[in-house]
Amino acid sequence: MALARVGYLGPEGSFSHEAVLTLADVEPVACASIADVLAGVADGSLDSGLVPLENAIEGTVSATIDALVFDYNLVIEREVVLPIHLHLLAKAGVTPHDVTRVSSYVHALAQVRGYLAGLGHAQIEQTTSTSEAAREVAESSEPWAAVGSKIAGSLFGLEIIAADIADHPGNATRFVEVGRGAIAAPTGNDRTSIVCFQDADRPGSLYGILGRFAARDINLTKLESRPTKLGLGDYCFVIEFDGHVGDDIIGDCLADLQAHLVRVKFLGSYPVTGEGSSDRREEVGEARRSAAQWITSLRSRIRD
Amino acid sequence: MALARVGYLGPEGSFSHEAVLTLADVEPVACASIADVLAGVADGSLDSGLVPLENAIEGTVSATIDALVFDYNLVIEREVVLPIHLHLLAKAGVTPHDVTRVSSYVHALAQVRGYLAGLGHAQIEQTTSTSEAAREVAESSEPWAAVGSKIAGSLFGLEIIAADIADHPGNATRFVEVGRGAIAAPTGNDRTSIVCFQDADRPGSLYGILGRFAARDINLTKLESRPTKLGLGDYCFVIEFDGHVGDDIIGDCLADLQAHLVRVKFLGSYPVTGEGSSDRREEVGEARRSAAQWITSLRSRIRD
Amino acid sequence: MALARVGYLGPEGSFSHEAVLTLADVEPVACASIADVLAGVADGSLDSGLVPLENAIEGTVSATIDALVFDYNLVIEREVVLPIHLHLLAKAGVTPHDVTRVSSYVHALAQVRGYLAGLGHAQIEQTTSTSEAAREVAESSEPWAAVGSKIAGSLFGLEIIAADIADHPGNATRFVEVGRGAIAAPTGNDRTSIVCFQDADRPGSLYGILGRFAARDINLTKLESRPTKLGLGDYCFVIEFDGHVGDDIIGDCLADLQAHLVRVKFLGSYPVTGEGSSDRREEVGEARRSAAQWITSLRSRIRD
Amino acid sequence: MALARVGYLGPEGSFSHEAVLTLADVEPVACASIADVLAGVADGSLDSGLVPLENAIEGTVSATIDALVFDYNLVIEREVVLPIHLHLLAKAGVTPHDVTRVSSYVHALAQVRGYLAGLGHAQIEQTTSTSEAAREVAESSEPWAAVGSKIAGSLFGLEIIAADIADHPGNATRFVEVGRGAIAAPTGNDRTSIVCFQDADRPGSLYGILGRFAARDINLTKLESRPTKLGLGDYCFVIEFDGHVGDDIIGDCLADLQAHLVRVKFLGSYPVTGEGSSDRREEVGEARRSAAQWITSLRSRIRD
Repeated sequence: MALARVGYLGPEGSFSHEAVLTLADVEPVACASIADVLAGVADGSLDSGLVPLENAIEGTVSATIDALVFDYNLVIEREVVLPIHLHLLAKAGVTPHDVTRVSSYVHALAQVRGYLAGLGHAQIEQTTSTSEAAREVAESSEPWAAVGSKIAGSLFGLEIIAADIADHPGNATRFVEVGRGAIAAPTGNDRTSIVCFQDADRPGSLYGILGRFAARDINLTKLESRPTKLGLGDYCFVIEFDGHVGDDIIGDCLADLQAHLVRVKFLGSYPVTGEGSSDRREEVGEARRSAAQWITSLRSRIRD
Repeated sequence: MALARVGYLGPEGSFSHEAVLTLADVEPVACASIADVLAGVADGSLDSGLVPLENAIEGTVSATIDALVFDYNLVIEREVVLPIHLHLLAKAGVTPHDVTRVSSYVHALAQVRGYLAGLGHAQIEQTTSTSEAAREVAESSEPWAAVGSKIAGSLFGLEIIAADIADHPGNATRFVEVGRGAIAAPTGNDRTSIVCFQDADRPGSLYGILGRFAARDINLTKLESRPTKLGLGDYCFVIEFDGHVGDDIIGDCLADLQAHLVRVKFLGSYPVTGEGSSDRREEVGEARRSAAQWITSLRSRIRD
Repeated sequence: MALARVGYLGPEGSFSHEAVLTLADVEPVACASIADVLAGVADGSLDSGLVPLENAIEGTVSATIDALVFDYNLVIEREVVLPIHLHLLAKAGVTPHDVTRVSSYVHALAQVRGYLAGLGHAQIEQTTSTSEAAREVAESSEPWAAVGSKIAGSLFGLEIIAADIADHPGNATRFVEVGRGAIAAPTGNDRTSIVCFQDADRPGSLYGILGRFAARDINLTKLESRPTKLGLGDYCFVIEFDGHVGDDIIGDCLADLQAHLVRVKFLGSYPVTGEGSSDRREEVGEARRSAAQWITSLRSRIRD
Repeated sequence: MALARVGYLGPEGSFSHEAVLTLADVEPVACASIADVLAGVADGSLDSGLVPLENAIEGTVSATIDALVFDYNLVIEREVVLPIHLHLLAKAGVTPHDVTRVSSYVHALAQVRGYLAGLGHAQIEQTTSTSEAAREVAESSEPWAAVGSKIAGSLFGLEIIAADIADHPGNATRFVEVGRGAIAAPTGNDRTSIVCFQDADRPGSLYGILGRFAARDINLTKLESRPTKLGLGDYCFVIEFDGHVGDDIIGDCLADLQAHLVRVKFLGSYPVTGEGSSDRREEVGEARRSAAQWITSLRSRIRD
């Protein structure tokens, strides 16, 4: 069987590469940009794409979310949460004190600013990716170092000379795998992502939208406003919440929003990574089931 | 075929009698009290009962609502709205100026207070019903008058010597026909009545209840708090709203309330008397239908 | 100093009489009806009036609430909660088994229905008041009994031959003392009553009203819809809540309602009878105080 | 009098430079980064700083908002909205058809992607700023072009050889001037920015926050969730709304939020740029004034 071709933001050795390697039975395909990944999925040259959606420190990846919201009709099928460990990478035998130049991608450098200030003596250089930084270090005869992932070090024969040097520990990036339309089967612990577009400038309407979720005890896990590119102050809302479009209550909520309040674009229902709050879900589920039986029994008494 | 035996609050000639005569193919059965009507329905000696629920001037009829809420598991199947016209009834030949004594039921007297003040000279007496007042007038040889309905006058051979003498014109009473459990078929212009009991003293919970309706654009037509008889300040809420328990959105709302917020007692879904706002209903219905199709098409894409 | 003349619903020996006797330094004045009490306050012939507002079993006293809402501009200055104990009253020597006839006011009879069913043999008669029943018993030479208060028994020389015979124990009536306009000083544990009139048929507007209270964590203690007498289905809302019009947050809430949502009629701010939830109030109060200081300090930085 | 030293994101010729030149009586000071601008304000080496907050196409400028939220206690005193016009800049005599290489900052290139695709033949190069691109073009003897602002062209002696070439017309950037603590005086048409931090994982609490604004008819103009850098899924909310902290209703709303729901960080109250909806504001203001007088007159009746 041919492996699924899954695009990612290259070059090889990037955190996106590390994320795609966590998937089974795939053939990773490095792309030059997030836009190229998504375009490849849309035109069929890729089976799916794995793109970064948000980072615990940096926040939303605008290129990804804006492309999903405005440019493509793709569907999120899976999420992959990757812990981000940044290391100081150099050739064997070089110690942090020897290093005369540290290079990396601008976001990676920003996350190790405190560590680098402690080094003091080294010159700081920006590169176009963390992999590129590792390549430069590998090709140079100077005692240089790169900030990057373990995989980037391995690719270019570098060693970790200082591990986990990020100023805020516990960083992670959430990636999503997107496809051309199929929706993941419900697992009982799912998440759904949508975008809500306002028809007109209705004051208070975000409040109205949230009320539809509150009224059904649907737990929101993320809300973000994005500019619609129609002018300053014109926003749409990306909303993520617990549940699957196949669940009665979620389907009813989305139909309600679509019918009465906003234009809704569906971005996907997919399994939640990590442990869910399944106890509370079961309890709520039981109450709903029992209430649903009550309605069914009432309806059985309606005259023909 | 045997006519349905429908109980009402007697005696003959009462407004309840007038209301029951608007129903087709029924055998009216006069009862001594509202409680007797409802008990007769519950024990099967009556097929149904027609009882007053609220009056435009006096408000809710506590005896009816409390019995439906606390004492019986009966279902409202129909509503009948009866315009209330109070007349001055006397023997032929007597004029308002001749009248030396006016009698009626206390509520009827209260509604013609202004008119009677204009008469000035006549003595005012309370009776146990408007029919009883008419009977006394018929049996007396004095120039007495009763305040009552046209039907009460007819029953005892009295004439209307002053018509429509209520201080507030446009009075009406809303009656409901209650049965032992069958629910009226949906007509597209229906109303539903429920009672919500709070589990505990959750502050703000009426607001929570109303939020469930607001979130679904369900139009409330009545809300009333009733003491639960457990102590001052302990209330349940009688709520009436547009829609039928057989409608998806109403069933979902009731299930939601029952599962998450309050104990719900269903009092009935039945056709609305008078013209409804059917235009807006159709428009909303179309938007819901189109949104429901969207959800269905999304779900068709869920993987097996 | 002349005692304050306080009107109440007579005759002597009524529960209203019992309630007025709990007030210090007053001259009780019996009136023929609730309307007479309120009219006397309005025209200055009484200094104030004590009228029943609601009963734990029967609910709201419509005559009182409707008069305060529609007919007068009076202000509630105080509430008095009176436990209601109904006794079987007869001449000395008569036992419950001897009794051949029991009389009382219709509401009192309704509350002892179960007890009377147990007696079985006695004839039941309605009277125009519980006092009137006691008077009849006192004047008769038959072994009759009345259902009424201890004070009614004392007034007519009767004894309690069966105590506390109500079917639901723990009954109580809440009376309010109303005056011509002065508002009671804040005590820190106060209640406020208002009526909200809707301008037009704005769907969801009760929800909007309640939202104003919820947004300020103001605890509602009562909500009741009353017909406006303009037609079936046209309601105003009587709302009671913790706090005093002199409190910042209450004043702000009422101004907000008045400015944006509904016409508000103020019915009074007055001390709460019984223990309040003062602990939570203090905690909330402390948080508000600290937040208010923060705003004050921010404002001190505004440029001239 | 010494001019106020106002820091901006350099180099000279940037859009930030263009924005700072719209301010009267200031000495613009170019800084190397947004962080340097804000640090200079905080340490007093600058009197204030003008930094980009959001762009109509790109959305929020994370570096600015995160620094204001997490790193500094600075206050927004003013906003400046600058229309963004991107031009193709080259030496006199060069036409678009001649151009062999186009360079600019990555965000500027992204906004003219469609136009550049039409050129077809030219090589595309990224630079570290639009000014840097213009400098390179000026220093080269090749027929190169830069994408940048009119001011960047002027600084390096270039001409506009194609005007307004952005794919989406109407782009604009909103800058804010921040200072060390003084709050701008109210003008009657002001905006306020705050950040709300949640104490714990309270489901539905954003809904609660928005309810506080809805309850007071405060018009929200922006809402954005930002990661708190404490882990994926942990957000704070940046909220902007009409009104000034010196307004009663705004002060009350902020005190309410702070006392009951969330920790609030105040980011500033400042005049709105552009025409406001002053008609509606006046109308609402009049209703509030009249309601406030009603409360004042009620309070004058409280007993001592």
